[in-house]
Amino acid sequence: MAYKLFYWPGIQGRGEFVRLALEDAGAAYEDVGRSQGEAALMAAMKKLDPVHRPFAPPFLQDGDVLVGQTANILYCLGPKLDLAPADEAGRLWVNQLQLTIADMVAEAHDTHHPVASGLYYDDQKAEALRRARDFTENRIPKFLSYFEEILANNPGGAGCLAGASASYADLSLFQLVEGLRYAFPKAMARMARSLPQVTALCDAVSRRPGIAAYLKSPRRQPFNEEGIFRHYPELDADHEAPQRFANPT
Amino acid sequence: MAYKLFYWPGIQGRGEFVRLALEDAGAAYEDVGRSQGEAALMAAMKKLDPVHRPFAPPFLQDGDVLVGQTANILYCLGPKLDLAPADEAGRLWVNQLQLTIADMVAEAHDTHHPVASGLYYDDQKAEALRRARDFTENRIPKFLSYFEEILANNPGGAGCLAGASASYADLSLFQLVEGLRYAFPKAMARMARSLPQVTALCDAVSRRPGIAAYLKSPRRQPFNEEGIFRHYPELDADHEAPQRFANPT
Repeated sequence: MAYKLFYWPGIQGRGEFVRLALEDAGAAYEDVGRSQGEAALMAAMKKLDPVHRPFAPPFLQDGDVLVGQTANILYCLGPKLDLAPADEAGRLWVNQLQLTIADMVAEAHDTHHPVASGLYYDDQKAEALRRARDFTENRIPKFLSYFEEILANNPGGAGCLAGASASYADLSLFQLVEGLRYAFPKAMARMARSLPQVTALCDAVSRRPGIAAYLKSPRRQPFNEEGIFRHYPELDADHEAPQRFANPT
Repeated sequence: MAYKLFYWPGIQGRGEFVRLALEDAGAAYEDVGRSQGEAALMAAMKKLDPVHRPFAPPFLQDGDVLVGQTANILYCLGPKLDLAPADEAGRLWVNQLQLTIADMVAEAHDTHHPVASGLYYDDQKAEALRRARDFTENRIPKFLSYFEEILANNPGGAGCLAGASASYADLSLFQLVEGLRYAFPKAMARMARSLPQVTALCDAVSRRPGIAAYLKSPRRQPFNEEGIFRHYPELDADHEAPQRFANPT
């Protein structure tokens, strides 16, 4: 039976991390929000099993099982799609990497919504300018140099983050970097030379048959200013002199 | 062999979610940052296995295995400490709840650090006032009423979030609510009457033998203004008229 993915239509959002895994594996799935529209998505959400009701989309229905939280969905799907190691230690390591990617995704979102996700960007632009400056100067380098180091030290080779074959964490790192390149092209260009392994991994992911076909298809929605990664040029300014920070925590 | 917990000394922080599970189970562990001091913690972090280096504390050493990311540590510890269901579906559901708790913890942190964790609170107080207002008016009710509903609908009874016996998610919800009560006593008092199940669960967790003994011991550090949950009275203001929000996402 086909998986059912529940997520908002019109944006890649957190649903995209699940889509990429399903598409890479060639798994059959219905993207309910896109195929049936937002009203049907909302109606379906109201009819969910109240015992296991998820807090928010995305969530995935796999037969009788309903799974929420992006990293949890991927943890569950990983072995079924052959996108995770089979052993528990390997699965935990991939999950740990995925959760670190999720932390950075949340921070990327908050660059344009540092006050409240329920307010418009224009109502929190002053705060967004400050937060985005910290993000591009401090957080992007800190997170991406961490993944660069993990790739360089992987005993299975720098072609993937964990073990010797691709996992869903590789697909998610690709999506994260694609989103950052869309939202912060100047900041990412400044970093590119110091991220050879991350860059090579992203290139390799984009060439995987399932991913390459997906990226060319109409199923891949473009990035836009409704999603997590938004290109507001004023948030991607040039900074010659870095901001001074009070403490390193 | 005793577990080794690596976390910053002086704060409960994210390490506390791991401590509560270990303490509830009476597991032997060394809290390296507290027993050896911050310099020793930093030195130990530099000597970690570079292949599985965690992005940030907390992380846990269990023999040869090093595990990072709070929810991932608890996922790994759960069955060993008898604080998670044995079956995969049950473990995934507890993990989903834990990740939702983790999302709220991150939002609670950002009420006092909405711009940058590397800047002092005083340097982002204006932004913090706006973010905390949204958090207390919208986010606390949304998250805690979700957990209230999950407890009320649990077929195993409202005494725990999942199944018929306590899991680490129950301990984490207790810690989250304790932290919110410390940081936002007025907002939490306004909500108390609508959260009977959450309140009862937190009371029950505090009476569990391992937890009760821990809370009375010097190992339980008090909340303070260096941690995730900080009591800045100006962030916990009375609000008669709610802010208007542009959209509900």
